[in-house]
Amino acid sequence: MSNSRAPGRHFLQIPGPTNVPDRVLHAIAEPTIDHRGPDFADLARTVLTGLQRVFQTSGPVVVYPASGTGAWEAALVNTLSPGDRVLTVRTGWFATLWSDMAKRLGLEPVVMETDWRRGADPAAIETALREDTDHRIRAVCIVHNETSTGCTSPIAAIRAAIDAAGHPALLMVDTISSLGSIDYRHEEWGVDVTIGGSQKGLMLPPGLSFNAISDKALAAAEIATIPRSFWDWQPMLEANAGFYFPYTPATNLLRGLREALAMLEEEGLGNVFARHARHGAASRAAVRAWGEAGGMEVQCLEPRDYSGSLTAVRLPEGESADGLRRLILQGFNMSLGNGLGMLKDRVFRIGHLGDFNDLSLIGTLGGVEMGLRLAGVPHTPGGVDAAMGVLTGSTEE
Amino acid sequence: MSNSRAPGRHFLQIPGPTNVPDRVLHAIAEPTIDHRGPDFADLARTVLTGLQRVFQTSGPVVVYPASGTGAWEAALVNTLSPGDRVLTVRTGWFATLWSDMAKRLGLEPVVMETDWRRGADPAAIETALREDTDHRIRAVCIVHNETSTGCTSPIAAIRAAIDAAGHPALLMVDTISSLGSIDYRHEEWGVDVTIGGSQKGLMLPPGLSFNAISDKALAAAEIATIPRSFWDWQPMLEANAGFYFPYTPATNLLRGLREALAMLEEEGLGNVFARHARHGAASRAAVRAWGEAGGMEVQCLEPRDYSGSLTAVRLPEGESADGLRRLILQGFNMSLGNGLGMLKDRVFRIGHLGDFNDLSLIGTLGGVEMGLRLAGVPHTPGGVDAAMGVLTGSTEE
Repeated sequence: MSNSRAPGRHFLQIPGPTNVPDRVLHAIAEPTIDHRGPDFADLARTVLTGLQRVFQTSGPVVVYPASGTGAWEAALVNTLSPGDRVLTVRTGWFATLWSDMAKRLGLEPVVMETDWRRGADPAAIETALREDTDHRIRAVCIVHNETSTGCTSPIAAIRAAIDAAGHPALLMVDTISSLGSIDYRHEEWGVDVTIGGSQKGLMLPPGLSFNAISDKALAAAEIATIPRSFWDWQPMLEANAGFYFPYTPATNLLRGLREALAMLEEEGLGNVFARHARHGAASRAAVRAWGEAGGMEVQCLEPRDYSGSLTAVRLPEGESADGLRRLILQGFNMSLGNGLGMLKDRVFRIGHLGDFNDLSLIGTLGGVEMGLRLAGVPHTPGGVDAAMGVLTGSTEE
Repeated sequence: MSNSRAPGRHFLQIPGPTNVPDRVLHAIAEPTIDHRGPDFADLARTVLTGLQRVFQTSGPVVVYPASGTGAWEAALVNTLSPGDRVLTVRTGWFATLWSDMAKRLGLEPVVMETDWRRGADPAAIETALREDTDHRIRAVCIVHNETSTGCTSPIAAIRAAIDAAGHPALLMVDTISSLGSIDYRHEEWGVDVTIGGSQKGLMLPPGLSFNAISDKALAAAEIATIPRSFWDWQPMLEANAGFYFPYTPATNLLRGLREALAMLEEEGLGNVFARHARHGAASRAAVRAWGEAGGMEVQCLEPRDYSGSLTAVRLPEGESADGLRRLILQGFNMSLGNGLGMLKDRVFRIGHLGDFNDLSLIGTLGGVEMGLRLAGVPHTPGGVDAAMGVLTGSTEE
């Protein structure tokens, strides 16, 4: 007898889009409202001020009815001019895509390479900026949490490195997979443009993205000459001052955002960050247990750069990560992230960000462990046990 | 005793975003799925082929996770180069905004004026193109249904005018408030780029927009030099060939789109167009009855250009349309569209597009008639009666 229904809730354990809480799903399913009416202004006021708390800034945060890639483009076209150099660190696939975008927009990316197993190195950035004596580099573009590798970059230290070099470049940071999951402080860390998206720590479907903007970035916008219209901050900020938008906003997603921001505040941002860090530690403990006899590893090699959002797992040489993922999807109704770029088929990625808890993590890791067994991937059993040890505080990571 | 609850369903009678059917709201509230998984490819295949039927084209339709203004920008940056001239007809506020955008993107709009009470004139376009002997005009940009005035433009006749002038300009058409409401044929009418949005006839919340693309537009994209990345057709079409997207798509809205496309097909596109035309006729009959003693008029003066999507209503000189709208919102829980640009406070707009039926239209017109009475706007009662006459076939428009 055929069975086309997969019972129970799907485990969406890619590192975003994440599991959307029912409260948020219900909010976005409320009937659409007039985006020029008084109820909308109340909604806009609530979300725009709530976003400032999440980005940890007293400055403006603009909201695009577009997915995260759009907010990358917004950061570049509002502040830079054709031929401007931008310093990027290729920490993984998303840093690569951002730098490719810069090139297509007529900028000149200066790319620092890495082995995709750690974050950006502040000392190397300082050196590169000291060598740029005529200040041709106009911006340093960093991905805070590389979703392709599960490595973070130390943003406060990078700010300090730029300052130590006495360099005027803008600092732009992609927080698409860290915002609302890993501690991030736009203002305190002196970031000029922070890029965020709705579909990860903010627990929404994809379709909204954000720029948090410093005064220095606003000043740069006044002389930047890449043509811009849809992404232009100026009409957006003018309309936002009255809690409206210069063109049709994504009303239903904004309703969902209001609910998601309320949920983050109910839990408390500090608790949200601690929960993610703890799930990262438990996941790495599971991977280390599976790899005890060698061959399986956490992709991130640098403890300082460990991610609370996701854990990328390297399989033993010759094993197919995509084959394992397919088997787990068919057998256990769970989606895991695939390897991207040079990591294709070499790693799979466990997302543990967004609306997530201990028992869902154990279910997730159980799905991986059973998958390894059924796929015949060489491993040592005991990963789930190791994770439970961390979660109950009986073992250290 | 205070009462902060407005009972019953809100009447969202702005000309978009429109009332979203419960079936669609439920679809977008389904849990988010993996945008790289097999279920997503099935979803993408269904919506991409369904969209071709709605745009009436066998060519590609691309979907942006962005609101309609973004799809305008996409049409321009994919096909044109800095300094290119575009011929636009200022039929109202949205034609103005599109032409402003062209200017901000480094293009040179050549603007033909109108009185905002009719659509674009094919003969005037033919003359302008004949005078452009060195073919400096690279595109003709037309708004099919001007949402600010309730006037349509005759696209097939404009195509014929371009051909009669022997001019190679591309034809670009904004169908944001006509697609899925008023008959529109991308391929048969020889349109090069059609711009659409989710939040009107397609019965979805805002957040998705579309470009239907001709072969000629694809060829233009190969030599166009405005910098582009997020909007670039090429990586979009490459990814769409395998039913994926080059960056995160708006998964939940795409689920809603699948449902909305199914609903349009169940009703039949021809029936959808006829329903809208009939509601336009009934609304105009109501306005004519209210204005029988003079002073109140349908904004659109040209019967050929009447819109099935909305009816813009001019109030007697000296009466405030915004005051009337406020009173109706407070008294009857209905949102009507405001006057834009030169029509500010002079007109209000009745949206009768999207998921809408006879009794909702009568309720809508009843709200307007009672509002006119309570606001003391000079009018002749009997508009609702006149509309019922049209709907029952007992009187002509």
